[in-house]
Amino acid sequence: MTRSFAADSVGLVVPQTAHFVEPLALECQRVLSAYDLVYETYGELNATASNAILVCHALSGHHHAAGFHSAEDNKAGWWDVCIGPGKPIDTRRFFVVALNNLGGCHGSTGPASFNPETGQVYGPSFPMMTVKDWVKAQARLADRLGIARWAAVIGGSLGGMQALQWAIDFPERVAHTVLIACAPKLSAQNIAFNEVARQAILSDPDFHAGRFYDHDTYPRRGLILARMVGHITYLSDDAMKAKFGRDLKSGHFHYGFDAEFQVESYLRYQGEAFSRYFDANTYLLMTRALDYFDPARDHGDSLEQALARARCRFLVIAFSTDWRFSPARSREIVAALVATDKPVSYAEIDAPQGHDSFLLPVPRYLAVLAAFLQRVEV
Amino acid sequence: MTRSFAADSVGLVVPQTAHFVEPLALECQRVLSAYDLVYETYGELNATASNAILVCHALSGHHHAAGFHSAEDNKAGWWDVCIGPGKPIDTRRFFVVALNNLGGCHGSTGPASFNPETGQVYGPSFPMMTVKDWVKAQARLADRLGIARWAAVIGGSLGGMQALQWAIDFPERVAHTVLIACAPKLSAQNIAFNEVARQAILSDPDFHAGRFYDHDTYPRRGLILARMVGHITYLSDDAMKAKFGRDLKSGHFHYGFDAEFQVESYLRYQGEAFSRYFDANTYLLMTRALDYFDPARDHGDSLEQALARARCRFLVIAFSTDWRFSPARSREIVAALVATDKPVSYAEIDAPQGHDSFLLPVPRYLAVLAAFLQRVEV
Repeated sequence: MTRSFAADSVGLVVPQTAHFVEPLALECQRVLSAYDLVYETYGELNATASNAILVCHALSGHHHAAGFHSAEDNKAGWWDVCIGPGKPIDTRRFFVVALNNLGGCHGSTGPASFNPETGQVYGPSFPMMTVKDWVKAQARLADRLGIARWAAVIGGSLGGMQALQWAIDFPERVAHTVLIACAPKLSAQNIAFNEVARQAILSDPDFHAGRFYDHDTYPRRGLILARMVGHITYLSDDAMKAKFGRDLKSGHFHYGFDAEFQVESYLRYQGEAFSRYFDANTYLLMTRALDYFDPARDHGDSLEQALARARCRFLVIAFSTDWRFSPARSREIVAALVATDKPVSYAEIDAPQGHDSFLLPVPRYLAVLAAFLQRVEV
Repeated sequence: MTRSFAADSVGLVVPQTAHFVEPLALECQRVLSAYDLVYETYGELNATASNAILVCHALSGHHHAAGFHSAEDNKAGWWDVCIGPGKPIDTRRFFVVALNNLGGCHGSTGPASFNPETGQVYGPSFPMMTVKDWVKAQARLADRLGIARWAAVIGGSLGGMQALQWAIDFPERVAHTVLIACAPKLSAQNIAFNEVARQAILSDPDFHAGRFYDHDTYPRRGLILARMVGHITYLSDDAMKAKFGRDLKSGHFHYGFDAEFQVESYLRYQGEAFSRYFDANTYLLMTRALDYFDPARDHGDSLEQALARARCRFLVIAFSTDWRFSPARSREIVAALVATDKPVSYAEIDAPQGHDSFLLPVPRYLAVLAAFLQRVEV
C-alpha cells in the first residue's frame, strides 16, 4: 500500500550512515579514531555538485529535517516547513544534506555509542565537542558526498552558529550562509540557563556520573527540568500569554502542587516526552558546545577579524520577540560583516512566537528565505 | 564591649514573637487554629499610633529588614538601605513593622513548625497560604500592636502584592501604599519559572514528599536548582553582562562540566548557600502564593473594580531592566488606578540591575521613595 504525500513534501526518506576511519582531532585535544555520521538527503545532486545545501541542526535537532520515515509516519522532519519542492529550500533546485552531529543521540557517534577502543559505551568519556569540531566533521561528509563547495550552509540557533563557523573555517567551500535566530556567542544569561539545565541532569541520582546506561536507567527528572527551563526560553512571554494565559486546568484553584495552570501541565508533558527520547550526556555536551562557541576568540576577540576571512554572501534573520537570541545579537553579526565589507542581507521578522519562530511557518520569514535562495546560482 | 553603628542605622534589633489563638480561616478553606508571627520594629510608635509603616517581604525575605542582631553581626537586615534614621523610611518619624509571613521559615508558624493538633511537624500538611491570608494575619498583628490604620504599607515584588491587597481588603486601614517592582498578577512565563523551581524540589528524592524532616535530610539539589533559576530572573541580562560577562574562572577552557564561566560558579555558590537555610516546603508555598495572586479575580476579573474600593494614595515604582515584573506590569496597576480616579504617582527608574534593583541603593529610587514618604502626615 502506498501513501500519497503532499506535492510540496519530499515524501519518504531513508537515513544513511557514513562511516569514517580517519581520526578526527578535536578542540579539546582528544581524538575520535573512528565515527559514524547519520544523514539524510533531499533532492538530486547535479552533475557539477554545485547545488548542495547543508542544513545544520540546533540543540535538540537531528538529521531528519524533512519528509517521512514510513507510510504510517505522521510526524514530518523538524524543518519540513522550509524543505521540499516549491518550499524556500526548494528540492527541485537544491540537493539538501541534513546530518546528526557528533555527540548526538540519533545515530551519529555519541555518548551512547560503543567506544571501539574499549568495547564499552562511551558515556561521560565521550569527548567534548565544539561547533568547530562539528564543522570539521561536516566537511568530511561533504568530501564523501563529492561536494567541494556548498551552494549554501543554513541553520537556526545553534545551527546558525555552525553556518557562521563554516564561513570562517572553510571560506572557499561556502557560497552562501544563512544565519537564523542566532548569536555570535552566548551571553552570561544564556550560559546561566544552560547551567541550570546541566545541574538538573548532573545532580539527578539516576545520572550515575554519566554511566546511567550501565544501571538500566536514565536521569528522567533531570532531563524533564532541563527541557522545561529550555522550553521557557524558546517561547516569548507574548507567545506564552497567547497560548496559555493564566488559564486553569479545571476552572478553579485546588491549593496544591499538582498542575493548576495550563502552562504547568504543558511544560511537564513536554519535559516528560523529551526525557524519554533524548540522551542526557548529549544534552550536556550540546549545551556546552553552545557555551564555548565564540569564533572571535581565535581572532583576538574580534568578530570582524574572524569574519574578514569569509568569502560568501550572508543572510541574517532575527525574530522580534526572540529573547534567547534577540535581534540585537543578530545585529552584532551584521555590524561585523558590514564593517568588513561583506555582502549581507538582514531581515528582522515581526513574529510573536519567540525563538521558536525559526521552526514555524511564519510567512514573511519563509518569503525572505525563499527570495534569497532563489538568487543562488547553481 | 559595645559596637558603634552608623548614624543612619537602626542599630541592634531584637525579633519579637506574637502568639495568636483566634483561629484564622484561610482561602483554601482550612483553618490555622493557633500561630506565631515573628516580627521586628524600628523607631517609636507615636501617641496616636498614626506613624506606623508595615514592610512586607518578598519570596525569600523575612522579618529582619533592618539593623543587626548582635554586636558581631556583619549582615544588616535585607532592606537596610531603605530603613533607618534619615533613610527613605525614616525611623525618626516612623514606627516600622516587619514580619515573617505565615508559612515562612524564619520563626513564624510554617511547614517546619509543630502542629499543635497532632504534635508533629506540619511538613506538607501545612495549609496553602495566599497573599489575602497573609494580609489578614498582618491585620491581626496590627490590632495586637494597637495600629488601627497604617500610615503606609510598603513592599517590593511579592511584598508589593501584599501592599496592593491591603489597599483592597482593608481600605480604611491604609493611608498610603507603595508598590515596588510588582505586578497585578503573574504572567504565564512567571508561573512557568515558578513551576520549574517547584518541580526541582518536588522531584528531588530527598524531598520525601515534604517529610524530609523525618529523614534528617533536605532536598538540597532541588533547592539549589530552584534558587538558580530564580536568581536568573532577578538579574537583568545587562546586569549579568556587567557582573560576569563571559569571564572564565581560569582563563582557558577545560572542556568539561565543572564551572568554566564565572556566572556558573556564582549561581552554584548562591544556590548552595540558599539551600542550607531555606525550607523547601516554604519555597513551594511562597511560589504558589505568587501564582495565585490575582486580586481582580474576586471582582469580575476587573482590576479597576478591585481597586475601586481603595482609599489610599499610591506610589508605584518600576525598574527599566526588570524583566520578571517589567514596567509594563506596573503600568497596568497605574492604569487601573487612574481609571478609577485614585491618587497615584508612578516612577520608572532607569537602573541596570533588573528585578533586584528594589533591594539596592539606586539613588533616584531612594529619592522618589523618600520624597513620597516625607509628604505622609503622621
